[in-house]
Amino acid sequence: MRKIHVIGIGAGDPDQLTLQAVRALRGTDVFFLLDKGEVKSDLTRLRRDMLETHVPEGTYRVVEARDPERDRRAGGAAYSPAVGDWRSARAGIYERLIVDELGEDETGAFLVWGDPSLYDSTLGILEEVLGRGVVTFEYDVVPGISSVSSLVARHRTGLNRVAGSVQITTGRRLAEGFPEGVDDVVVMLDAHQTFRRYADQDIHIYWGAYLGTPDEITVSGPIAEAAPRIERLRAEARERKGWIMDTYLLRRNPERS
Amino acid sequence: MRKIHVIGIGAGDPDQLTLQAVRALRGTDVFFLLDKGEVKSDLTRLRRDMLETHVPEGTYRVVEARDPERDRRAGGAAYSPAVGDWRSARAGIYERLIVDELGEDETGAFLVWGDPSLYDSTLGILEEVLGRGVVTFEYDVVPGISSVSSLVARHRTGLNRVAGSVQITTGRRLAEGFPEGVDDVVVMLDAHQTFRRYADQDIHIYWGAYLGTPDEITVSGPIAEAAPRIERLRAEARERKGWIMDTYLLRRNPERS
Repeated sequence: MRKIHVIGIGAGDPDQLTLQAVRALRGTDVFFLLDKGEVKSDLTRLRRDMLETHVPEGTYRVVEARDPERDRRAGGAAYSPAVGDWRSARAGIYERLIVDELGEDETGAFLVWGDPSLYDSTLGILEEVLGRGVVTFEYDVVPGISSVSSLVARHRTGLNRVAGSVQITTGRRLAEGFPEGVDDVVVMLDAHQTFRRYADQDIHIYWGAYLGTPDEITVSGPIAEAAPRIERLRAEARERKGWIMDTYLLRRNPERS
Repeated sequence: MRKIHVIGIGAGDPDQLTLQAVRALRGTDVFFLLDKGEVKSDLTRLRRDMLETHVPEGTYRVVEARDPERDRRAGGAAYSPAVGDWRSARAGIYERLIVDELGEDETGAFLVWGDPSLYDSTLGILEEVLGRGVVTFEYDVVPGISSVSSLVARHRTGLNRVAGSVQITTGRRLAEGFPEGVDDVVVMLDAHQTFRRYADQDIHIYWGAYLGTPDEITVSGPIAEAAPRIERLRAEARERKGWIMDTYLLRRNPERS
């Protein structure tokens, strides 16, 4: 029976690997590295470095594949179907990779940035591959340090306040309004700096990009003051590197403990 | 200048330590282990085992202290002040520990279960100690695998669904109603199995206790079917061990992807 590990490898700092993840890496025969276009070279390099550091040479193979691009032009209500098409396209690719590249008694692994539980489609795709019935395999999940945990650790703050709640959401949803019933909101996948819409409110922002890597940038402060600074730093970094991954926490009524 | 690491040590599985956490452990002179009454022996043992595994004998000291009990009888609006008193009492203890037990050029560490960013008061207490001005120190935070990440990894599911949000909240807040605007809710600190209030709804529950330890128990399924089973297992385990730590994800309208 084929086996697959879905391994959370942390937010960018190779030392965020857990001992469990290192063990899973060492027990893997075939690593599948899937990447989209622009971020490809940096992130593929980082993962290959992790393998070279932790797994004896000659004990594993690496298979690189190109992820189909998601149709990001599809906005609003069209978002979910576009994601569905994209997921099916990816399921086809994953199925072929598993059938063609992974022997029946071998163990494969997908390396996921951050934690596989947050805004990552690997688990959904593997379930879809199993549902197609062409190939069977067992799989497990190794949790990783998410960019969310990384962000607040660098800012030395908590996600929630005493007895409070925290919501993790997307830039797209934040654009529809500040979530109800919570004052602490983490925003991921925000290409449009949606925090700017809330610059007139009593909100403290904790922002970070390329967390855990040598390029890491962090900014925190009252949103009115911090927003222009983030905007400038973000544009410069994006220009310099060609891509950016950032996330932030918005804390409403920050003086409350 | 005194230094302090606040180290997330994972949800219970010693292999959830990150390489960064292991490095921080090895750079620590004094470990402060604070525990409440009932869970004391098991959890102190687990942390001492981690130290014995990863830090050379004779290079560190361990200081154990008793955390003041929080006044849990204070309900509703009284919750926050009671927490404030408790935090002040703890700040006094932490201050004394740092002044008395940590040399001026030494590095101390607090070991936090899970991730220091979620429902843990260590960072708030350290800030309160600094605010008192009796002792100064630098501190940093090493993120850890939270019980939330652990839970969903064991259940091989995500926290959010495609393009959706997830809220992390407490049993107390869930008792006030299902959070607005989200269908995926993680509940922590729930001593009263508040999920039972939602047993008539179209909700899938993913539950886990003692995650990552040999005592781990997990249950998932439609809440109407799973709730009585969780209730029974939880009562048995609590009786057997004397304490329980559990958490769960509620997924409303589970058939939506």
